[in-house]
Amino acid sequence: MAKHPPRLLTGIKPSGTPHIGNLVGAIRPGLSLSAQRTDAAYYFVADYHALTVIHDPKEMTRLVREIAASWLAFGLDPSKDVFYRQSAVPETFELAWVFSCVCGKGLMNRAHAYKAAVAANEEKGDADPDAGISMGLFSYPILMAADILVVAGTQVPVGQDQRQHVEIARDIATRFNATFGKNVLPIPDAIIGEDTGVLPGIDGRKMSKSYGNVIPLFGTSKQLLKVVRRIKTDSSMPGEPKDPDTTLLFQIYRHFASSEQTAAMRKEYEAGIGWKDAKDALYDVLEAKLEEPRRRYDELMQDPTTLDGILADGAEKARAVARPLLDRVRRAVGI
Amino acid sequence: MAKHPPRLLTGIKPSGTPHIGNLVGAIRPGLSLSAQRTDAAYYFVADYHALTVIHDPKEMTRLVREIAASWLAFGLDPSKDVFYRQSAVPETFELAWVFSCVCGKGLMNRAHAYKAAVAANEEKGDADPDAGISMGLFSYPILMAADILVVAGTQVPVGQDQRQHVEIARDIATRFNATFGKNVLPIPDAIIGEDTGVLPGIDGRKMSKSYGNVIPLFGTSKQLLKVVRRIKTDSSMPGEPKDPDTTLLFQIYRHFASSEQTAAMRKEYEAGIGWKDAKDALYDVLEAKLEEPRRRYDELMQDPTTLDGILADGAEKARAVARPLLDRVRRAVGI
Repeated sequence: MAKHPPRLLTGIKPSGTPHIGNLVGAIRPGLSLSAQRTDAAYYFVADYHALTVIHDPKEMTRLVREIAASWLAFGLDPSKDVFYRQSAVPETFELAWVFSCVCGKGLMNRAHAYKAAVAANEEKGDADPDAGISMGLFSYPILMAADILVVAGTQVPVGQDQRQHVEIARDIATRFNATFGKNVLPIPDAIIGEDTGVLPGIDGRKMSKSYGNVIPLFGTSKQLLKVVRRIKTDSSMPGEPKDPDTTLLFQIYRHFASSEQTAAMRKEYEAGIGWKDAKDALYDVLEAKLEEPRRRYDELMQDPTTLDGILADGAEKARAVARPLLDRVRRAVGI
Repeated sequence: MAKHPPRLLTGIKPSGTPHIGNLVGAIRPGLSLSAQRTDAAYYFVADYHALTVIHDPKEMTRLVREIAASWLAFGLDPSKDVFYRQSAVPETFELAWVFSCVCGKGLMNRAHAYKAAVAANEEKGDADPDAGISMGLFSYPILMAADILVVAGTQVPVGQDQRQHVEIARDIATRFNATFGKNVLPIPDAIIGEDTGVLPGIDGRKMSKSYGNVIPLFGTSKQLLKVVRRIKTDSSMPGEPKDPDTTLLFQIYRHFASSEQTAAMRKEYEAGIGWKDAKDALYDVLEAKLEEPRRRYDELMQDPTTLDGILADGAEKARAVARPLLDRVRRAVGI
């Protein structure tokens, strides 16, 4: 009977050039979980999930490299943790088919992402509720179950919006074990992180590429300064006291400054710091935190062979788990 | 740009111990298409399709070996043709995911097998139209498209009931090529065979294991004779003329006798052959046609290493096509 040691698994969807919102909301909390443990955590770039939306091969290649280089630049350590592309573990896709055979269609009918797409069609008045919905979108949670279970992942950090997907993976693993053999698969748990809040963009709305309001993680110092200078402020003058808790600049500042710096800056706001000085202070903490990662990122992006090699090494480690696991699954079903 | 030479591909679902109905309806017509050509035809045992219904590992292993041994016993030549298990070509499952991303869910909603399952639920008055329907059943046509296209199959012999599945594979291949690159995939054609009619079972109903009315392909001569003796006749006496065209025994006889034998037997019926003699004559032609295949079948079933080796050799040949094809697909999508 297989034993299933705890294994932390994080899937990373390459959905756009990373910005500081991604750093605060995903990369930092994702890496902090690994930092708390001595065993290897597993991280994969979910390129085949991205294929449900990205149908431009050049964009796909670029986004995968960018997201992989970003996580490495911010400290993902491939000598301790296992970092790989989903597409480099082919066992995943065979396992996904096996899971299709023990997964009721009703489970997919009730998945949030699918239901949201149907609701959007109904709102538009589309006669076909499934208009524009691919089988990739519909069966996405099955592939995600395979992603998790193919490397025997037991702990899956996700946001609230992804909790259901881990529950579906639990359902599938439980159903598989009940049908084909006790304990062949582990039953994974979702780890719901603290809500870090949504980092606002430079116009105060949610930071999002589609709003054109992001602060990029990479690029030059000059570009960074230019974006910081564009952050929205009000018309209050230097010397007028400012409320840090309602000030966009400060909301971003506190994510990058130390607690001492943050406490000191809070006082400066109350003492009426001018917007230009406040922006320069934000730029300084950002630059201090991003300078080194930017250098590593640029190195990796200029050397795709090294980057691809790191991911290939990770894939070999992941497959060393995936192959025997799939063999057990095959034996259990008689194939 | 890839060239796509004609390639005949036949999928064989291991759905039960083969009987003479399977020989007449599937094995013989399937093999006759290969006999007409000099290039290698591709045949695969669709074990992972069977997983949608077979959840007993021992039964799965047995049924796969039985169906493989049956086709080999009746003349499938693995030195000319390529014979393999679906599950031994893992590229299939990765390709199936790629296809999910270019296949609208609507296409699956309209697939016959799914619609029939929903209709059966509605007839039963089930509140959930998807009750008991697995994602394997629902997305079956996508896996079938991958089965065909992963080895660049262009000609797919199927019954009328399977024509739609090949049309779905055409749709998917066309959509993939339009999205990701001209001519990456061939566009397969269905080959609809002549309707050989349904061979009646020993009680006159359709020959089916579930009716307990089959004439098995394998077993001993004694067992065969016993089953033939049980074939339903009427109460007409020896010497009374009999209409061969409405006589069950004759319907079976003509599939196994030469045309000369069949013409001669027709006259014997009209001249009033007795049922016992008619049964003995049927037994004789069956025994003549089944004796040698039975011997080969028994040899293969008693030597699973050889049988598995034949299928493994075939899988290596199939993968020699599948691997570069999947590589082309991956490059086309940017993965």
